[in-house]
Amino acid sequence: MTQNIYDDPEFFAGYSRLPRSLDGLDGAPEWPALRALLPPLRGRRVLDLGCGFGWFCRWAREQGAAQLLGLDVSENMLARARAATPDQAIRYLRADMEALDLGAAAFDLAYSSLALHYVEHLAALFGEVGRALAPGGSLVFSVEHPMFTAPTRPGWSADAAGRRTWPLDAYLEEGPRSTDWLAKGVIKQHRTLATYLNLLIGEGFALTHIEEWGPTLNQIQAQPSLADERRRPPFLLVAANR
Amino acid sequence: MTQNIYDDPEFFAGYSRLPRSLDGLDGAPEWPALRALLPPLRGRRVLDLGCGFGWFCRWAREQGAAQLLGLDVSENMLARARAATPDQAIRYLRADMEALDLGAAAFDLAYSSLALHYVEHLAALFGEVGRALAPGGSLVFSVEHPMFTAPTRPGWSADAAGRRTWPLDAYLEEGPRSTDWLAKGVIKQHRTLATYLNLLIGEGFALTHIEEWGPTLNQIQAQPSLADERRRPPFLLVAANR
Repeated sequence: MTQNIYDDPEFFAGYSRLPRSLDGLDGAPEWPALRALLPPLRGRRVLDLGCGFGWFCRWAREQGAAQLLGLDVSENMLARARAATPDQAIRYLRADMEALDLGAAAFDLAYSSLALHYVEHLAALFGEVGRALAPGGSLVFSVEHPMFTAPTRPGWSADAAGRRTWPLDAYLEEGPRSTDWLAKGVIKQHRTLATYLNLLIGEGFALTHIEEWGPTLNQIQAQPSLADERRRPPFLLVAANR
Repeated sequence: MTQNIYDDPEFFAGYSRLPRSLDGLDGAPEWPALRALLPPLRGRRVLDLGCGFGWFCRWAREQGAAQLLGLDVSENMLARARAATPDQAIRYLRADMEALDLGAAAFDLAYSSLALHYVEHLAALFGEVGRALAPGGSLVFSVEHPMFTAPTRPGWSADAAGRRTWPLDAYLEEGPRSTDWLAKGVIKQHRTLATYLNLLIGEGFALTHIEEWGPTLNQIQAQPSLADERRRPPFLLVAANR
């Protein structure tokens, strides 16, 4: 089972204070780019893998999605999602993404935001999602970029000239990375960009768009601390079809 | 027109002394991985974009390819390729990859080794190659990995603890990079991994395999200087179908 760090009190308290927790989708700078990859949602059945507080499910419902299923491993997050969503069309269920049983052709869109880099057995999950999508269905997800997860000691460095660089190493050594982010010992699975894409291809997906997300100049103007993220993209966004 | 650095005397002299120039395909550590992406060649029509000394064309002919066309911008390299290949099935032509006219459905495989990162207008080239491939045809190529081309000052750094890292920066800033490799002022086009893949998708290719190449442990044992290349893959290999 994937580490359930979101129910660690220290992590949860920190996570709850992030802009993306307080402000929802609009608090996530990569949201406009991820939204641009989504198919029309009206009348569609939507699966959200790692639904967190339910922001995406509520938004998709507003766009006209007919049915929504949000899955998460965190009881804390599901409780808040349920409290915020008195809508019969949205269900929230606790689920371990390492052991899903979704049924066949039950969804038109599978969506996931910054959750799959916690999943160890991603081929099995992609296979299950592939079976759960109707023909022509889409998978759209974001993960932490492999360049972001790769380093053995992540963090910006400055060289003698003060130039800021990201200390890439160990990129091809896939496997768990333990980092201290909001709490100590958060375990993420580092895998290469090629591995993400080849797993999808291997499970019968056709890749339709890959985005190595960085902030726009407008976003940097509004939030100058984002500037470094153009040196090394923090997120990978992928769209694929069945 | 792409910079023709290969006809710079200093560059050409240095390039001619590299293992991949002296020993051919077997002098290139990524060759086994690239070869593994190739379709069966017997009876096929093969295009080599950036054929250099003609090593690949000769090898593909040995595998039973029926017709081969090797294109390169370097007169020096074409002269050697022609001298080494007295075979009517192989033609070598001088061509600027920025302005090709290949004809429709004229090839079954388009191949390119470490040449496309010199090409500025890659969408136009991918479009032309797409038209030149017969239905079901394949494109298999290698380029310098975007992580390799990205840095404003490429080269390994050592931190206080002596840990070797690759100083990633400017990854999302696409465009020319001038480096001093074998000669001063060699111009390569840095583009992100996503850009390579989205250009292919946009020209109607289906991606079949992506590889961020690094040496195997056996290769490192035989040539210990390769070890750093696992920290930051030097090459990107892509296979796609029409």
